[in-house]
Amino acid sequence: MKKGLKIATIGGGSSYTPEIIEGFINKKLSGELPIEELYLVDIEEGREKLEIVGNLAKRMVEKAGANINIHLTLDRREALKNADFVTTQFRVGLMEARIRDEKIPLRYDLIGQETTGAGGFAKAQRTIPVILDICRDMEELCPDAWLINFTNPSGIVTEAVLKHTNIKTIGLCNVPIGMVSMVSEMFGVSADRIYIEFGGLNHLVWGRKIYKDGEDVTKEVMEMLKDDKLFTMRNIPNLQWNKELIDALGVLPCPYHRYFYLTEDMLKECKESAAKDGTRGEVVRKLEEDLFELYKDPNLNIKPPQLAKRGGAHYSEAAVNLINSIYNDKKDIQYVNTRNNGTILDLPEDVAIECNCIIDKSGAHPINIGHMETSIRGLLQVVKAYEELTVEAAVNGDYHAALKALTIHPLVKDANVAKRVLDDIIKENIDYLPQYRK
Amino acid sequence: MKKGLKIATIGGGSSYTPEIIEGFINKKLSGELPIEELYLVDIEEGREKLEIVGNLAKRMVEKAGANINIHLTLDRREALKNADFVTTQFRVGLMEARIRDEKIPLRYDLIGQETTGAGGFAKAQRTIPVILDICRDMEELCPDAWLINFTNPSGIVTEAVLKHTNIKTIGLCNVPIGMVSMVSEMFGVSADRIYIEFGGLNHLVWGRKIYKDGEDVTKEVMEMLKDDKLFTMRNIPNLQWNKELIDALGVLPCPYHRYFYLTEDMLKECKESAAKDGTRGEVVRKLEEDLFELYKDPNLNIKPPQLAKRGGAHYSEAAVNLINSIYNDKKDIQYVNTRNNGTILDLPEDVAIECNCIIDKSGAHPINIGHMETSIRGLLQVVKAYEELTVEAAVNGDYHAALKALTIHPLVKDANVAKRVLDDIIKENIDYLPQYRK
Amino acid sequence: MKKGLKIATIGGGSSYTPEIIEGFINKKLSGELPIEELYLVDIEEGREKLEIVGNLAKRMVEKAGANINIHLTLDRREALKNADFVTTQFRVGLMEARIRDEKIPLRYDLIGQETTGAGGFAKAQRTIPVILDICRDMEELCPDAWLINFTNPSGIVTEAVLKHTNIKTIGLCNVPIGMVSMVSEMFGVSADRIYIEFGGLNHLVWGRKIYKDGEDVTKEVMEMLKDDKLFTMRNIPNLQWNKELIDALGVLPCPYHRYFYLTEDMLKECKESAAKDGTRGEVVRKLEEDLFELYKDPNLNIKPPQLAKRGGAHYSEAAVNLINSIYNDKKDIQYVNTRNNGTILDLPEDVAIECNCIIDKSGAHPINIGHMETSIRGLLQVVKAYEELTVEAAVNGDYHAALKALTIHPLVKDANVAKRVLDDIIKENIDYLPQYRK
Amino acid sequence: MKKGLKIATIGGGSSYTPEIIEGFINKKLSGELPIEELYLVDIEEGREKLEIVGNLAKRMVEKAGANINIHLTLDRREALKNADFVTTQFRVGLMEARIRDEKIPLRYDLIGQETTGAGGFAKAQRTIPVILDICRDMEELCPDAWLINFTNPSGIVTEAVLKHTNIKTIGLCNVPIGMVSMVSEMFGVSADRIYIEFGGLNHLVWGRKIYKDGEDVTKEVMEMLKDDKLFTMRNIPNLQWNKELIDALGVLPCPYHRYFYLTEDMLKECKESAAKDGTRGEVVRKLEEDLFELYKDPNLNIKPPQLAKRGGAHYSEAAVNLINSIYNDKKDIQYVNTRNNGTILDLPEDVAIECNCIIDKSGAHPINIGHMETSIRGLLQVVKAYEELTVEAAVNGDYHAALKALTIHPLVKDANVAKRVLDDIIKENIDYLPQYRK
Repeated sequence: MKKGLKIATIGGGSSYTPEIIEGFINKKLSGELPIEELYLVDIEEGREKLEIVGNLAKRMVEKAGANINIHLTLDRREALKNADFVTTQFRVGLMEARIRDEKIPLRYDLIGQETTGAGGFAKAQRTIPVILDICRDMEELCPDAWLINFTNPSGIVTEAVLKHTNIKTIGLCNVPIGMVSMVSEMFGVSADRIYIEFGGLNHLVWGRKIYKDGEDVTKEVMEMLKDDKLFTMRNIPNLQWNKELIDALGVLPCPYHRYFYLTEDMLKECKESAAKDGTRGEVVRKLEEDLFELYKDPNLNIKPPQLAKRGGAHYSEAAVNLINSIYNDKKDIQYVNTRNNGTILDLPEDVAIECNCIIDKSGAHPINIGHMETSIRGLLQVVKAYEELTVEAAVNGDYHAALKALTIHPLVKDANVAKRVLDDIIKENIDYLPQYRK
Repeated sequence: MKKGLKIATIGGGSSYTPEIIEGFINKKLSGELPIEELYLVDIEEGREKLEIVGNLAKRMVEKAGANINIHLTLDRREALKNADFVTTQFRVGLMEARIRDEKIPLRYDLIGQETTGAGGFAKAQRTIPVILDICRDMEELCPDAWLINFTNPSGIVTEAVLKHTNIKTIGLCNVPIGMVSMVSEMFGVSADRIYIEFGGLNHLVWGRKIYKDGEDVTKEVMEMLKDDKLFTMRNIPNLQWNKELIDALGVLPCPYHRYFYLTEDMLKECKESAAKDGTRGEVVRKLEEDLFELYKDPNLNIKPPQLAKRGGAHYSEAAVNLINSIYNDKKDIQYVNTRNNGTILDLPEDVAIECNCIIDKSGAHPINIGHMETSIRGLLQVVKAYEELTVEAAVNGDYHAALKALTIHPLVKDANVAKRVLDDIIKENIDYLPQYRK
Repeated sequence: MKKGLKIATIGGGSSYTPEIIEGFINKKLSGELPIEELYLVDIEEGREKLEIVGNLAKRMVEKAGANINIHLTLDRREALKNADFVTTQFRVGLMEARIRDEKIPLRYDLIGQETTGAGGFAKAQRTIPVILDICRDMEELCPDAWLINFTNPSGIVTEAVLKHTNIKTIGLCNVPIGMVSMVSEMFGVSADRIYIEFGGLNHLVWGRKIYKDGEDVTKEVMEMLKDDKLFTMRNIPNLQWNKELIDALGVLPCPYHRYFYLTEDMLKECKESAAKDGTRGEVVRKLEEDLFELYKDPNLNIKPPQLAKRGGAHYSEAAVNLINSIYNDKKDIQYVNTRNNGTILDLPEDVAIECNCIIDKSGAHPINIGHMETSIRGLLQVVKAYEELTVEAAVNGDYHAALKALTIHPLVKDANVAKRVLDDIIKENIDYLPQYRK
Repeated sequence: MKKGLKIATIGGGSSYTPEIIEGFINKKLSGELPIEELYLVDIEEGREKLEIVGNLAKRMVEKAGANINIHLTLDRREALKNADFVTTQFRVGLMEARIRDEKIPLRYDLIGQETTGAGGFAKAQRTIPVILDICRDMEELCPDAWLINFTNPSGIVTEAVLKHTNIKTIGLCNVPIGMVSMVSEMFGVSADRIYIEFGGLNHLVWGRKIYKDGEDVTKEVMEMLKDDKLFTMRNIPNLQWNKELIDALGVLPCPYHRYFYLTEDMLKECKESAAKDGTRGEVVRKLEEDLFELYKDPNLNIKPPQLAKRGGAHYSEAAVNLINSIYNDKKDIQYVNTRNNGTILDLPEDVAIECNCIIDKSGAHPINIGHMETSIRGLLQVVKAYEELTVEAAVNGDYHAALKALTIHPLVKDANVAKRVLDDIIKENIDYLPQYRK
């Protein structure tokens, strides 16, 4: 007999919470996940949002008749105690920090984006001390629980947990599942008929082969991509790909690859839209305010459709499916971030990669990749070296590692620029960077 | 008894020739290298320079009493027949092509340099078909001869020979030997008291450990480097290093690393000096004209001291020492370009690397390196992937490989820029690019 | 709409054929595999057996109402033309050759077994020329067909096909599926509740982790193994494991590991049973004669239960499931032999390994393994080196490779013994070894 | 100015000591090594031999006028304090233990040899705790000293030091230098005209290429080897190689390879000679007694020529040359045991290998090897796995690791035999195996 599950969601006051609640409700009602206790945890600064979204969550559960006990708490340890699954969706420093991450690089004519480049570096520096702190608590309070991380930069955060804790973890991102969805739209078929062999890093993942009903349709997808069929995500400017590059690659880039393959135009777009509408963070801040206004409505008891605009489509789907496959030993294939262990031969064994994995009760088992094509390998390796240094910097407050990380990042020009942007990042985030206050 | 040696020097009309002649004379006189025949080979366009420098060479030999038969010829096959050593110092497309290599990238706000970045790519595309053609002749006419290549980009050209011919080859560069010289000047000691463990690629080599009289002085060198002690080469702007990066690296960058670590300032400098004095190629063209005027002087019978300004110091020293150690089975350590074969574990086995090697009659034997520090590894891997694609493009006239090569090069911004610069390169060099005329 | 499938079974006159026929019938009736044409192919020497078993097959199909056209033919090319799947179950040299494989090693006090040791080597030398010949035909007549090989030594034969042909292939063995079955019997549960993470080589595969209903029960299985619970196969003497070794390994050896871990006792048993009842081949020859007597009965129209004694349980199940998962793009996990490609980091990339794979329309996709435990790695590496040399010897008739293969094989004592047994093998099999008749 | 050196020789009471004393004297007199203090250290049980050989050493120094202060002591810590070099030549358990190592395996029809097989395993178990203990003292008393180990099994002992201490170490063996000597005798030339590229493990090293005056003479050596030219060592029975194997290998095996390539005959020889003359240890015990009688002679003040019979020729030469090259930063090539670090790509990075190294003040720098030929790789890998497990067993007293080590060793038949021999080894050596007394 399956015992009731306890789930703790760190960053429970997030505007995304209704989505994951919806997912949990569905799996409870279908009998797949016997969720009994769901703890939404936040910190003092997020108390108000936690209460708003938490009360919506309660109304959703009640409306659905799902019989899940929802707890709203600022006491993380209470939430973690004996938890079966811990999901993380927190944002250290709130939206203000994201906006800084976007703006500081722009000062130096660099792309300002919250997960890649200097902005992602800053976010990693703030996030990693907190996730390691959570893991220390987990090691004590729920050592067998799974940590399902989708806090960005998800791959880097996952790598920090893999390298520096004993907690079982899987990192999640909505990009691969989003790419499947986009391809399915290209063909006008349902997503379950599309299968993609992914390989790479979080936000730097390539679709190495694409199948429709088991037939290889990679070339057709490449042609459609050149024909500017829709292939993007809400939060990434939909610039047209370089057609010759698409031919040359022969594999499907992810939407974030635009930052690397179309750097100049993306920077231009970043600057223009920041000037015109504010950075993406500023736009989202406004969207979130509107969402929380909606959430306050005591008559709202379902996930409001407006949430779809927020940009995090598929996150909840990915997280709930992952928990479901672990719990029910499904052995299905999901696209997650896990330890490389030789899956991609061009990268160190102990780093996090994003790839197709078999998911079962013992975790994520990557499907072999081997070597990647030369140009992909080159980009992959330099970005992974950046990520490794970023983890090292974040864990130890190592300024030298940080400087080297940014110096080699393809979106940061050189060491002098890296130093300027790094110094600004540390100075303006110092409240969230205990490791640099030594 | 040692039989007399036959040496063929391709590109014999180079302004550098007096330097290598001086080296050959010295080794002949010392009894180490029994050189009997020296063929200086050039092409029709270089006939005049060949005659000028060739006659100087003859006067130098006579003056020294070295008893070497110098032949000036446009018939490469005659020169190669039964040669023992072949040295290459040719420049496909002459100085005009170099100047184009420097100017085309500048149009797109990219560093224009003849060996790294888009300029080096162009030079590789022109050079590789010619070197492979030479190797085809060698396979027929002198299959056991050694090819000592110092035609730039030396590492890439060496890799093309290693991967696509059966000829025994070693690639040479004056950068490592120059770095030893600079360090010896820092300490005010003779160069033979300095030893550096190098590792990396041609023009992207790091001094991993530095020894004075066998004692590790790496840290002291790093401190002096930060104190802006002289550390540069004649042909590279001597911009000040980023001090924190030097601390963070802990190893000695080569002068060319400025292009990667100080990109913004180097680009600025490139643009300014091009505007003011012309590109480096234009400066050198003038220097060369002056040199050839000197060379014409029938009374000149030694290497003129003015040659030192030309920028290729140590090349001749490196080449002659290499030939000497091969011929005499010296088993000394030299810094050359050869097949990786696992020496640097972070790179494929079949690529060319630059490292410390034992040199003996059977060739260059790399001294083990293992893994390199994370930030170095990342840069190394992406530049090597660029180099591999550059070789592939040059050998096959593969536009896709070319586009991918430039797209991932750290000094080229993105795919759109890469395409523009690539299209200009092909168009303006088409006379020298038979592989792209298919 | 699914088109009708054409399947060719090479070695169709095998006594196992009724089993695979049963499997095909079931999948046809269930609607999963629309098999229309089934060609049973054999050679002149096997004509009589082909007719006997082929007619039984026809009666089975008719009785079941499966509507599959069964063709009996000696014309392999007719059978291969446009085939969708080709299965191989032939035995070069018939049972007489197997008996020689078992007896020659015994002369030198070596284990005589048809798949491992010197016997397996001999079988590989006979089989590889034939399988490559089949593949040449396939490249011409059905280049897109899948070759499902279960001719032993299955891993070595698969490696020969992977390295020397363009045919898509997967190698099969009943050992892993048999181990799952044995473990399920240990626990008294159905086999679908047991999952094992396999890794290794054909007939040298370890169960690295064992799960019951998703829970890790590896330790319990190890304890039961020490308690001498049944864990063997019909064709391998069921000697008691060394209990301390089982503790030390911590992973599940396969039944064939007895030859390596209990060599002395296995050799003794081999010799005793050969003296008493004849070798396994001699026993099987008698069993087969009885089976063919049964098969002749015109009233028999199902797979006779006596076939179960023959020792090849699960082969048909494995083959039919594999074809089914390929055809229907199932993405389920099966245990097969395929290209390593880095799955086991301790082995070369281009060799065949046996491991858990996702099976879909594009083939077998190994699930990552990484490094194996030191003692396992050591044994794995030396046996794989033997296998690589065995393939090289078989493909090229390379006596030196053959001698080296046997010299390093853990079941052959040394080079002198290896030479003696090798010379006997070549001499007594020379009719089947065209590659050694050069 | 070079300061005077302090050297500590652990196991100073060894019969070999006069050889190393001779070497030290020569280097002192030549001005290369300014040795001031030489401590000969032994344990209480060795006090008498220490005094005998120590007094001979003093007479030798005096006679030579070398001005080295020789100290005889049982106080290891006094000897280690501020030492510059520590050499180890001790034998835990004295000659009695060696004789046991040779006899226990013979009981089970296994080769009984003191460095390879079960005997070498036993020796490693006794030696490793002592060497680690010495290293602990060194970390405290002379952390910058070099440990020059030639205690057998030298490769395994070196690996234990590399993996488990912070002491700089190099392992030595006389086999490679002996092979050079044998080849030079084959050609009738002086040893300095022969150069061999070695690769492998201690006592399992292959001469991959052999040069005379820089010319590759590998094939000629192989032919001579087949013609039974002398190629052996005093302590290894000189059985004739298998000629076809020599052809097949194409590289030079070391004398110890006879145990692996000619196992059956070597076992026979072991048994016969043990029965006739006693084991090698018993023979040596007698030789040593005779030597010590000689050493007592107060008129003896040079190394007596009878020492040459003892079997350890070249050890002293190797050790003194190594110290000399380190101290004088020679950068010459020597054959030593050091960390693999990717030199042989087929082995883990952290293990000890035996290969050609550049020796300088910073230690041993391996010359790149890459992959080894398949049959060599296979044997190398399984023996290295045995060695890794042997280190693990010795360091932790891990019975399971020990059992696995012996089970996969090519000279031990299987797990049952391994267990028997292991249990005897532990029981009969228990006084010297503190790690197994837990």
